[in-house]
Amino acid sequence: MQKVITLRTDRKNGLYDITNEVVSLIKQSRVKNGIASVYVRGSTSAIMIQENWDQSVQNDVMTLLGRLVPSGIWEHDRQDNNGDAHLKAGLIGPSETIPIIDSTPGLSTWQNIFLCEFDGPRERREVVVTIIADN
Amino acid sequence: MQKVITLRTDRKNGLYDITNEVVSLIKQSRVKNGIASVYVRGSTSAIMIQENWDQSVQNDVMTLLGRLVPSGIWEHDRQDNNGDAHLKAGLIGPSETIPIIDSTPGLSTWQNIFLCEFDGPRERREVVVTIIADN
Amino acid sequence: MQKVITLRTDRKNGLYDITNEVVSLIKQSRVKNGIASVYVRGSTSAIMIQENWDQSVQNDVMTLLGRLVPSGIWEHDRQDNNGDAHLKAGLIGPSETIPIIDSTPGLSTWQNIFLCEFDGPRERREVVVTIIADN
Repeated sequence: MQKVITLRTDRKNGLYDITNEVVSLIKQSRVKNGIASVYVRGSTSAIMIQENWDQSVQNDVMTLLGRLVPSGIWEHDRQDNNGDAHLKAGLIGPSETIPIIDSTPGLSTWQNIFLCEFDGPRERREVVVTIIADN
Repeated sequence: MQKVITLRTDRKNGLYDITNEVVSLIKQSRVKNGIASVYVRGSTSAIMIQENWDQSVQNDVMTLLGRLVPSGIWEHDRQDNNGDAHLKAGLIGPSETIPIIDSTPGLSTWQNIFLCEFDGPRERREVVVTIIADN
Repeated sequence: MQKVITLRTDRKNGLYDITNEVVSLIKQSRVKNGIASVYVRGSTSAIMIQENWDQSVQNDVMTLLGRLVPSGIWEHDRQDNNGDAHLKAGLIGPSETIPIIDSTPGLSTWQNIFLCEFDGPRERREVVVTIIADN
């Protein structure tokens, strides 16, 4: 099964939890064991598995990426001034592959699935979820 | 086929080679060509493909991550003082997908599969290996 | 279907666009919806999804990685003086999994698939593409 999750982002930089949407698609697929490939179509966004306890780690992710990839110093900034967003997206990557165990994502207690927005706000971000059974 | 590799870690930070366990599961699966998805259930650990020649690169990985993600300066540290471990885990990521070629992982001579521990020691780390044949 | 893309690299550090080769293999496979797993066999190279508009972001990627992972200061340098190349490869990772939508890679307008060379030039880099249909 393959489906697209769409979401709106409301900040320049932020993490958006999409775990519930992925759980729901896996249930719909009726696949018991296998993998869910989660891929964001957008070169200034990424997918990260991260701690879900509270907002603190999500804030820390953006603080860290802002330190590692400062804005305003890149060759690409002469095009459209978002060089840092592309670099953060490339560093984190647009996809994660998550096991499906007994019809649910095989995340640990503290792992959730997040879309990372690096160049928002955006009216529409598309995340493709592809579900494949094991052999 | 889907199986869980479990291992104990004995340090705060360290890489643990799990290549032999993955090789053995691929053999068990009798899949000739396809993929093996390797996923660690734990928000302070990650999976990295890295050089296997000696201990030096493994030490360098931890030196690098300690420079990029210093400890003790994160908002999450007020919760349980391991903000750096979550950030390292998010940066490296919990999964790698490796091709299966002729019933063995399609690693190059110097590539092995490592669990990265960022908040050990831990009695039990769980790595889920899902094996899928190609079409 | 599983096939190997081979390419020659002509610089110490550089990004090489392999999107056309992946598009062509997906067409050959006749898989309509599913995933393409793209994996580079080589512990000093990586696969990155990145902006394809012009050369600027590709240059910025190498500038960024050179800042984050300076050369010449690693324990592994005593072996063969390429510690930074292994570290960059581990940070970016050797694989990306891309959805196949209607017989074509589900990339957005500005996303292309790049091989990252960190220790070139090399006569032969091997990228394994494994194509799997969804259920």
